[in-house]
Amino acid sequence: MITPSLDVLCIGNAIVDVIADADDAFLAGQGLDKGSMRLIDEAEAVRLYGVMGPGRELSGGSAGNTAAGLAALGIRTGFIGQVADDQLGKIYQHDVEAQGVEFLVAARGDVGATARCLILVTPDAQRTMNTFLGAAQRLEAKDVDLARVADAAIVYLEGYLWDPAEPRAAMEAAIDAAHAAGRKVAFTLSDTFCVDRHRDGFWALIDAGQIDILFANEAELLAMAGGENFEAALAMLAAKVGTLVVTRSEAGAVAVSDEERASVAAEPIERLVDTTGAGDLFAAGFLAGQARGLGLEVSLKLGAIAAAEVIQHYGARPEADLKALAGDLLG
Amino acid sequence: MITPSLDVLCIGNAIVDVIADADDAFLAGQGLDKGSMRLIDEAEAVRLYGVMGPGRELSGGSAGNTAAGLAALGIRTGFIGQVADDQLGKIYQHDVEAQGVEFLVAARGDVGATARCLILVTPDAQRTMNTFLGAAQRLEAKDVDLARVADAAIVYLEGYLWDPAEPRAAMEAAIDAAHAAGRKVAFTLSDTFCVDRHRDGFWALIDAGQIDILFANEAELLAMAGGENFEAALAMLAAKVGTLVVTRSEAGAVAVSDEERASVAAEPIERLVDTTGAGDLFAAGFLAGQARGLGLEVSLKLGAIAAAEVIQHYGARPEADLKALAGDLLG
Repeated sequence: MITPSLDVLCIGNAIVDVIADADDAFLAGQGLDKGSMRLIDEAEAVRLYGVMGPGRELSGGSAGNTAAGLAALGIRTGFIGQVADDQLGKIYQHDVEAQGVEFLVAARGDVGATARCLILVTPDAQRTMNTFLGAAQRLEAKDVDLARVADAAIVYLEGYLWDPAEPRAAMEAAIDAAHAAGRKVAFTLSDTFCVDRHRDGFWALIDAGQIDILFANEAELLAMAGGENFEAALAMLAAKVGTLVVTRSEAGAVAVSDEERASVAAEPIERLVDTTGAGDLFAAGFLAGQARGLGLEVSLKLGAIAAAEVIQHYGARPEADLKALAGDLLG
Repeated sequence: MITPSLDVLCIGNAIVDVIADADDAFLAGQGLDKGSMRLIDEAEAVRLYGVMGPGRELSGGSAGNTAAGLAALGIRTGFIGQVADDQLGKIYQHDVEAQGVEFLVAARGDVGATARCLILVTPDAQRTMNTFLGAAQRLEAKDVDLARVADAAIVYLEGYLWDPAEPRAAMEAAIDAAHAAGRKVAFTLSDTFCVDRHRDGFWALIDAGQIDILFANEAELLAMAGGENFEAALAMLAAKVGTLVVTRSEAGAVAVSDEERASVAAEPIERLVDTTGAGDLFAAGFLAGQARGLGLEVSLKLGAIAAAEVIQHYGARPEADLKALAGDLLG
């Protein structure tokens, strides 16, 4: 096998986050479920934006956040996600590249506007996300450079990408290309609503042996397994994937592979500000460990460190020096 | 005199801030003077953006920040600043209106792109600003609704607006309209480089009695007076304007009017993060006090409270509840 030129190639929705403070009464008045992600159309995006507070714009998107975290940890990282040829698209590409990530897909002028996610952060640091996918849902299989996919040790995919049809096909093409080249495929279930929408499709992927590393939080794991028993759900999923990683917020995280099981406590934090990106950065830390050939326990610890950094400030991408925080764990 | 429908109408450059972390070596490599604001053209804006780190976009602009602070304090506030009919312009208008400020000028499609300020924040919380004025410098006198200017108790102008010719004429028209209606004109010197560029113009305004409330920091005051002696400079300027307000960073602030002199200590803070907007928010607090008919000392205290809030987080607009922080000072 040829030594890959990228450690991790992330494929996901290229989304600019628009973050605003909100209180519970605002969420209730808008009929929003706190802590969830819902897909909205352009009309609803315009309406909700019109009534929400002043925003802070930061590049986001689940796999994009993970890519930023990986690069911050010194991992050779690429990103594929569709942006439009507009101001927000230029901002998105800049932010990805400025983090040291290779941006591997061209902006297009025929795909509407660049995606945005209206994120309402309540005083309890929960985020309620309203995503207008726009150009992101127009990522096509033909836009994915399969030679670069085959040239990455791990390809990382977000479950959110399963929502629109075109990126789903692009993702399937990437999985095939990765496995044909003997590479690993990592996948995140993204959120419980995403699992509810696509449980059958996700199970089909898993049953077909398409997923080598599966990321889920506790709620997503239970939603996939269809029960209330954490250990039973863990065993059910772990039997089907090479490595299963389950995050449990302040209770830490657990990983199970064919050979071992490991767990890690959550890192202590000074102040919880905004949980946006916690799962994405946990995945970044864990994948960084895996890319460096480290064991489950160290990889989990790296995930916990990266997640702890991102929840102590607004926005879903690292601000502090993750490499310094990781210390000598990365070797 | 008819009771005005606005307490304060702010006129300034409508600028989206693009905030990125940088270190001293980066500033040196780019030949940038730490702590200064420089005007750049579009080519330099594109070049510098290409080499700087990932950004956080927030609506800014000096007078725009002041308007946001005033509205957060419950003051009836309007804003005039030119944006383009593009994504950043829509974001800017949204953020102004979402704060409860009346946005009083229409976006235009014939003025290039909405202005942006590339702000590099070093670990010492200093900001180095690189401003591409774009559409903002196309604000014309005909775009200023003079009836609304005449209908505001105070019109507040930023010295930065003196840089391009068209907004300068717009500002002069606003001053005339305000005084014709018996209203007050407040003005900020903005920064020392701005004073260096326009000392004669600013002195002409002051000597003609056009400025009722003048804001400066210590360096700007000395740059205007042309000496090194603070008290001498203070006396020189105070003799020419109704009220002079001078901010002195951690040394607090002083105000001098015909009848009295008052000073205030800086508010204690937990953590200095980003000084962007400190002067703008001080002006907001002080003008809020003046709009409510409060004395110099209480107005200064309100300025210090608003400034202390904004320097403890990234971005130049308030995030905490300023009204709550002001407590019963506002009556």
